[in-house]
Amino acid sequence: MQPNAKEIAQFIDHTILKADTTSAQIDTVCKEAVAHSFFGVCVNSSWLPRVVSNLKGSPVCPVAVIGFPLGAMSTQTKAMEAQWCAQNGAREIDMVINIGLLKDKSDAAVLADILAVVNASAPAKVKVILETALLTEEEKIRGCQLSVKSGAHFVKTCTGFGGGSATVEDIALMRKAVGPTLGVKASGGVKNLEQASALIGAGATRIGTSSGVAIVNGLAAQGGY
Amino acid sequence: MQPNAKEIAQFIDHTILKADTTSAQIDTVCKEAVAHSFFGVCVNSSWLPRVVSNLKGSPVCPVAVIGFPLGAMSTQTKAMEAQWCAQNGAREIDMVINIGLLKDKSDAAVLADILAVVNASAPAKVKVILETALLTEEEKIRGCQLSVKSGAHFVKTCTGFGGGSATVEDIALMRKAVGPTLGVKASGGVKNLEQASALIGAGATRIGTSSGVAIVNGLAAQGGY
Repeated sequence: MQPNAKEIAQFIDHTILKADTTSAQIDTVCKEAVAHSFFGVCVNSSWLPRVVSNLKGSPVCPVAVIGFPLGAMSTQTKAMEAQWCAQNGAREIDMVINIGLLKDKSDAAVLADILAVVNASAPAKVKVILETALLTEEEKIRGCQLSVKSGAHFVKTCTGFGGGSATVEDIALMRKAVGPTLGVKASGGVKNLEQASALIGAGATRIGTSSGVAIVNGLAAQGGY
Repeated sequence: MQPNAKEIAQFIDHTILKADTTSAQIDTVCKEAVAHSFFGVCVNSSWLPRVVSNLKGSPVCPVAVIGFPLGAMSTQTKAMEAQWCAQNGAREIDMVINIGLLKDKSDAAVLADILAVVNASAPAKVKVILETALLTEEEKIRGCQLSVKSGAHFVKTCTGFGGGSATVEDIALMRKAVGPTLGVKASGGVKNLEQASALIGAGATRIGTSSGVAIVNGLAAQGGY
């Protein structure tokens, strides 16, 4: 069954993460998110207080990224960043896994890194970005397993800064690795309704994109409204 | 006068910042830095303790990046990250300026952001990365002026993740904007001796590059050793 416009909007984290983002762009994204009933607005932490203020009184969820986009910050600084974001109104926290430690097979350190962010973020939910384009299949699965073990609430494909994009194959692999109940967020290069629908069909429960308006308009053009 | 090999090595921050950097790569970079007497080794903070341990007993300076590479973390989290790095052995801290706030002309907020990092980093020195490829000439000059005002010790061209590279024109512009005494670090796409020499000629006092070995070998090949 194809989701209707209202349903697909509720999958979308409306996202603006570029380094040169201005306050006017942040305000536009927040207005769009409220107007289209997107699930969340995902930003870098310097914009979080503005986003929380803009979204006040709406159900749209403020989302902040952590250790972004390299994932190579120390565990302690990721945890401090997560705590600051949770205390400043983020209801969801999208962290980047430590990719180098995952490649080193330092699983205990990768787990401790995620766990520290999960603990520092509560009650905010945590998504773990794997940066799939840089990983082997074995590393993707191991990253998913460590995320489940940590108590994180979602796994997520890409930062949008590391090359590659969300693929149906990766979403299916991640869904299989985390089981039926954890969240799976498809992000990176999701530009239109067809892609978003295919990713949801493969197991995604959230779509991270800067093309949310185009996606819901595409659906409307097909009679979905 | 062209610098000899020993002199140019002392300009170089040997740099490895990719998200998928492994411990073995970190160890190699540290060994190279000691062997060639580079000035520093520049890494993401999760690798800082390993770098400090590797460099123990050598004069090579541990350098950590902050708010990297987007510069869009909140001021409080940048300051916490800087303090953690200074407490864990970083003697220099390379932070990214808040590019969006600079474009917003929110100069007081940009200054407060740098100042918080400078205060949290002491006694470590602070370099302010402008990400020149994303800035107009006016923004580059304003970024330099705010860096001087904050008490930072260096301005720096690029993260290496934001497009563009260190140019002779930008180094000359930044040198003019900060005056004769502040440090100016050229980073981003510096691949060989000719580039490094030209950037130093234009006013750079430090070179950030992952090609340090090639640069000093190039110099050796020209009889510089």
